Amino acid sequence: MTAKFTLSKRAQALTSSAIREILKVTERPEVISFAGGLPSPATFPIERMRWATDKVFDECAQAALQYGPTEGFTPLREWIARRNSKHGVTIRPSQVMITTGSQQGLDLLGKVLIDPGSKVLVETPSYLGALQAYSLFEPQFSPMQTDENGIVTDALTAEQLKDARFMYCLPNFQNPTGRRMPLERRQDLVKKATEAGVLVVEDDPYGELSYQGEQLPSLLSMNPDNVVYMGSFSKVLAPGLRLGYLIAPEELHGKLVQAKQAADLHTPSFSQRIVYEAVQDGFLDRHIPEIRTLYGHQCELMVSALERYFPAEAQWNRPAGGMFIWVTLPEGVDTTALLTKAIEQHVAFVPGAPFFAANPQPNTLRLSFVTVPAEKIELGMQKLGALVKAEIAGIKSPVAA
Amino acid sequence: MTAKFTLSKRAQALTSSAIREILKVTERPEVISFAGGLPSPATFPIERMRWATDKVFDECAQAALQYGPTEGFTPLREWIARRNSKHGVTIRPSQVMITTGSQQGLDLLGKVLIDPGSKVLVETPSYLGALQAYSLFEPQFSPMQTDENGIVTDALTAEQLKDARFMYCLPNFQNPTGRRMPLERRQDLVKKATEAGVLVVEDDPYGELSYQGEQLPSLLSMNPDNVVYMGSFSKVLAPGLRLGYLIAPEELHGKLVQAKQAADLHTPSFSQRIVYEAVQDGFLDRHIPEIRTLYGHQCELMVSALERYFPAEAQWNRPAGGMFIWVTLPEGVDTTALLTKAIEQHVAFVPGAPFFAANPQPNTLRLSFVTVPAEKIELGMQKLGALVKAEIAGIKSPVAA
Repeated sequence: MTAKFTLSKRAQALTSSAIREILKVTERPEVISFAGGLPSPATFPIERMRWATDKVFDECAQAALQYGPTEGFTPLREWIARRNSKHGVTIRPSQVMITTGSQQGLDLLGKVLIDPGSKVLVETPSYLGALQAYSLFEPQFSPMQTDENGIVTDALTAEQLKDARFMYCLPNFQNPTGRRMPLERRQDLVKKATEAGVLVVEDDPYGELSYQGEQLPSLLSMNPDNVVYMGSFSKVLAPGLRLGYLIAPEELHGKLVQAKQAADLHTPSFSQRIVYEAVQDGFLDRHIPEIRTLYGHQCELMVSALERYFPAEAQWNRPAGGMFIWVTLPEGVDTTALLTKAIEQHVAFVPGAPFFAANPQPNTLRLSFVTVPAEKIELGMQKLGALVKAEIAGIKSPVAA
Repeated sequence: MTAKFTLSKRAQALTSSAIREILKVTERPEVISFAGGLPSPATFPIERMRWATDKVFDECAQAALQYGPTEGFTPLREWIARRNSKHGVTIRPSQVMITTGSQQGLDLLGKVLIDPGSKVLVETPSYLGALQAYSLFEPQFSPMQTDENGIVTDALTAEQLKDARFMYCLPNFQNPTGRRMPLERRQDLVKKATEAGVLVVEDDPYGELSYQGEQLPSLLSMNPDNVVYMGSFSKVLAPGLRLGYLIAPEELHGKLVQAKQAADLHTPSFSQRIVYEAVQDGFLDRHIPEIRTLYGHQCELMVSALERYFPAEAQWNRPAGGMFIWVTLPEGVDTTALLTKAIEQHVAFVPGAPFFAANPQPNTLRLSFVTVPAEKIELGMQKLGALVKAEIAGIKSPVAA
């Protein structure tokens, strides 16, 4: 860039993502893309949203089109507080703030908690959008060790916890790995963080998308004085509304509200009121099971296809919920190079490397089972399995590659 | 605050606004409030918005509820580029980015352009929301001298311009003063800034709300390679949608898109598509004249009331557009103290001091003529005039106070 303008240091450090550029072509209809985290549009409750929108126009059009409070629409905040008061904890509406998607919560937390060089603990790997949002505030990421049950709490040392501003966790069906932390790990994590004086940030967009077994208690419920919880309507209603929320201890909530005011004054009144109407009368408790059935079925299809089409050297998990499966290929495979070949075959995924704050594993990849309809999962996975096999064969006998 | 959490330096510097707390009571219906910048809900085109929303549900509900591109909905960006291609300049859609209200544009510009200590030129006084948004990135504000015609370009020295990251200007009906910069000043400003290599940020939420004379060319039109232009649908359609936009030189646009992605992924697809439908077929060119007529009338009423009820020692301007009148009372009057008395009388305004980046003038105040309906302007101004007179009398003969 010929810098006629002097950019801030944080902006200079922003690099455009090569993978993002590659993935742009996956928007073409002929590409079977397991890359995006787009919910299936078949799950959008269009008639309910339309009914709710009509109700807002009938009953409170002027208020819905006017400026509103920075904290959000009070009745929606009250509804969120009630819905998250479970597992023995009572959430007060004064702890709730509506955000413009839960992505905004990440940005506001970064603003309010991160100075250049601040230590921030993140999972290995972690949600790319969070790493990007925090990076703008120039933290020092400290990667937490993980296994198939999420964060390995036994590996968290006093040294690693010391002076950390916060730890960022996705305990339910993590993006990108699809892993869920068991109850004991959750309890241990919150206990260790609280004892060390480290704030816990719990990002939970997928918690309701549980396909096997009971929902586990949130980290929030284990110590609401030391956990910021982030929720979203993107996966249970529709992402195009950009509606999420934060639940924060009150002394932090006030600062977050001030940062939110500077960021966009408030989240659209219009969409807040529509969502408030849409979720009344237990609508989500009727709607979410339909999403679970669809996604649970698609998850099964993808796991079945992995078993049939992927080589024995590949490893993957069988998620109990969420949207993603994490695949580890043999060392030596570079999934970024593989993506270019896959796109030529009209199939796509996301390479795993960008999800690592440090020491990326280039032989990993993320598959989404929610966006592509069931009938295309089989074909896409067949193509991808063949490519993976060819790639591994090429590594074993490089002359043939 | 008992800091259990270690806040970032920028968050520690955030102080809750005493005036914001005082103004919370102005939401009570018995208070005649000239404080808020709320557009009159009578101007919201509810039937048109309802029609546009129905069209979106009929024609593209799934896409409107799905994630969308960070830059914004392409047809809306194209429409904005066309609408801003005037006064001899052609804007390309690739220069346009949709923002979550134009407030978000301020935040993104701060992120991308301001390092701690960076020099940022601002008007004296300037929009409080901009000062707050930029402050989070810890700039050094350098106040530009102003008079009744806005920025005094003759007073801009090479020394003041040197190494400034950008200058922030509201050339049309500035918030808080209601002032408009004449053509010659605009040309001189852009010329000086360009020669000094200082980027110009032009914030223009009120440009279409012109009640007298022609609209003047934007700063953007004078040098699109060196101006970032910020527009909004808040004052011409409805603020509750939180829909604004940025037009930026392409080398800066890319960085702003990256910052936007980290901030909220994208502005709601739903509201972007509704607004796109609403503005078709020249709707704004029919609708905006209605807003102008209403606000122009209310402006006249307020100026007339100022002439009748305010003392000779007070000074104010007669705005040619926008939403605000700026009042200067004799030195010694503290309008923050006056506000407390005014609220007891059920009338409110905003004290001027917070709008100054440096050397606040405590004897100034801002009046909005758009929120309060015509029939209440007279009564509110009568009360306020009496309070001002009493305050000035108290200062002249402090024993009686």
